[in-house]
Amino acid sequence: MPKKVRIALDAMGGDIGASVVIPGAAISLTRHPDSEFLLFGDSALIEKELANHPALKAVSKVIHTDVAVSMHDKPSQALRRGRKVSSMWLAIEAVKKGEADVAVSAGNTGALMAMARFCLRMLDGIERPGLAAIWPTTRGDSVVLDLGATIGGDANHLKTLAVMGSAMASALFDLARPTVGLLNIGVEEIKGGDEIRDAAELLRNANLPQLEFVGFVEGDGIGRGDADVIVTEGFSGNIALKAAEGTARQFAEYLRNAMARTWRSRIGYLFAKNAFKAVRDKVDPNKSNGAVFLGLRGIVVKSHGGTNADGFAYAVDVGYDMVRYDLLTKINQMLNRDGQALPASPAAQEAVS
Amino acid sequence: MPKKVRIALDAMGGDIGASVVIPGAAISLTRHPDSEFLLFGDSALIEKELANHPALKAVSKVIHTDVAVSMHDKPSQALRRGRKVSSMWLAIEAVKKGEADVAVSAGNTGALMAMARFCLRMLDGIERPGLAAIWPTTRGDSVVLDLGATIGGDANHLKTLAVMGSAMASALFDLARPTVGLLNIGVEEIKGGDEIRDAAELLRNANLPQLEFVGFVEGDGIGRGDADVIVTEGFSGNIALKAAEGTARQFAEYLRNAMARTWRSRIGYLFAKNAFKAVRDKVDPNKSNGAVFLGLRGIVVKSHGGTNADGFAYAVDVGYDMVRYDLLTKINQMLNRDGQALPASPAAQEAVS
Repeated sequence: MPKKVRIALDAMGGDIGASVVIPGAAISLTRHPDSEFLLFGDSALIEKELANHPALKAVSKVIHTDVAVSMHDKPSQALRRGRKVSSMWLAIEAVKKGEADVAVSAGNTGALMAMARFCLRMLDGIERPGLAAIWPTTRGDSVVLDLGATIGGDANHLKTLAVMGSAMASALFDLARPTVGLLNIGVEEIKGGDEIRDAAELLRNANLPQLEFVGFVEGDGIGRGDADVIVTEGFSGNIALKAAEGTARQFAEYLRNAMARTWRSRIGYLFAKNAFKAVRDKVDPNKSNGAVFLGLRGIVVKSHGGTNADGFAYAVDVGYDMVRYDLLTKINQMLNRDGQALPASPAAQEAVS
Repeated sequence: MPKKVRIALDAMGGDIGASVVIPGAAISLTRHPDSEFLLFGDSALIEKELANHPALKAVSKVIHTDVAVSMHDKPSQALRRGRKVSSMWLAIEAVKKGEADVAVSAGNTGALMAMARFCLRMLDGIERPGLAAIWPTTRGDSVVLDLGATIGGDANHLKTLAVMGSAMASALFDLARPTVGLLNIGVEEIKGGDEIRDAAELLRNANLPQLEFVGFVEGDGIGRGDADVIVTEGFSGNIALKAAEGTARQFAEYLRNAMARTWRSRIGYLFAKNAFKAVRDKVDPNKSNGAVFLGLRGIVVKSHGGTNADGFAYAVDVGYDMVRYDLLTKINQMLNRDGQALPASPAAQEAVS
């Protein structure tokens, strides 16, 4: 039996906090009994929830703090108020100190990123982090990044995202050379802004051994599984992800309403209940919860702030998988392979805006 | 009976051309018998298709040209080769000459936009066109723009899109003061790039009588119907639209497969067939086909290049509606109302890149 996976949780993160985080951790524990937890936050609230989950309680340690980062704090405010004392910071710091293998928070993205950069620092040669998630496609799963860690970015930034995303796909999907596409508004060479066309040229010319660049992919190519890794800057990545989630919810709602409308459809529903459930599960945005910050010297997973316990459990699962698949080692290997993946590395940028 | 709606079609546009365009027009004609058509393109191909659609033939005039714009022509190439002679140009020119009320093409977006700008010119005070479409939401329909006419753009560009989109929503949905949201990666004031935050301030301060600015909307807010009009620059708008379309197709495929898997689900399907059809129809990207170029001195509708006859018919329907709802007059009124909708107007830019 390998050693346990030690997961640090920001128990105060998200719209709801401990009453989602603790039951979520309990669900994930049933799937991965070899997990251990460090729970950071208001110990009274945490212990109250833990009382309902004895199995989780048995493998958890509670570390009390009064300070929680609010969902509306700007990154700079969060750092000023929450550095060294907030549940979010302490969870990340546990990773830095080697007391945990991964930190998971449903707290606000900007604050989480700022604290993670400040506390863990960036990997050599990486200037800005990326936020990556697993996107279910009709062909299997793909890795999509950046989902909002960084707005905009030049060709080198996109190339770095491509290398990091490939490392993640390679680790998770056991692929020697994942295919990588750049998200664009057309597949022709003339489409998109300069930075995208330059990134395409960089990736094509580099012909990296760790990834196979397949060119541009349009928005509908993500769900079709046109590439194992889809790369874009954070604004459009976030928009793509949320537009897809919104559509999935719309579809589920239409289906629910349609099935309840007539006696024929209600009978049909009874017969096909399991099939429906399978479809709903497949497109349930909750199941895709859990995005990974890439480029840091440690693993930090971001959960949706508005998720429920089931959704938070999936984010914890992602953290578990990243540790078990040894993502960080893999990224380091990918970045340094043949010493050619990244441009001559500028000094890692440590200031946080 | 009001006068007929005269529709100019680029019969050579799209991946397939006349064999989609002509049957598509025939379908639209059954829904709007008060349409007339000008069909531009290879007359032999057009006449062959028309032979199968006598009702359409009776209300159509065929204008022959050998020249067609290819789906892969750059805008500059298309203009050089196709200006004054291609089926795309001639369809647009028919609008300029007042021989048609609207032009519809499934040809390549860049070429169509370049030709439309060059031939029709921009409205006073508008520098760059927007491409707008109707997006089905759980609350009704919304107008979303820009879907790819222009990549990027400053706060004034976003404000102009907001005003034009509101005019379209107002005309189509009969709203006195449509709600308008700016697409962003969060609803907090600190989110997004400078241009988006500046646009929010512009729109908030202007407090325009023709629209109600509701702030930022996230990607999943589009399908939820968070605003009647969703405004973004063309890259992210295009990505959002296609990501949503891709997800809808994924869902439909999952559903089809799930319903065929077991005898129980097959029986269920038989009972609930109509309900399924209703759901599939609701999320069928074909039904949302047809995007409108806004900001031009004439109405031009862009159909997906890869659509089928049913899909092309919807694009023709959109063209018909824009004429019947008098979109152009409405936009002009909105732009000029109280003389405050737009900033001091720079000279309309006519050069096409």
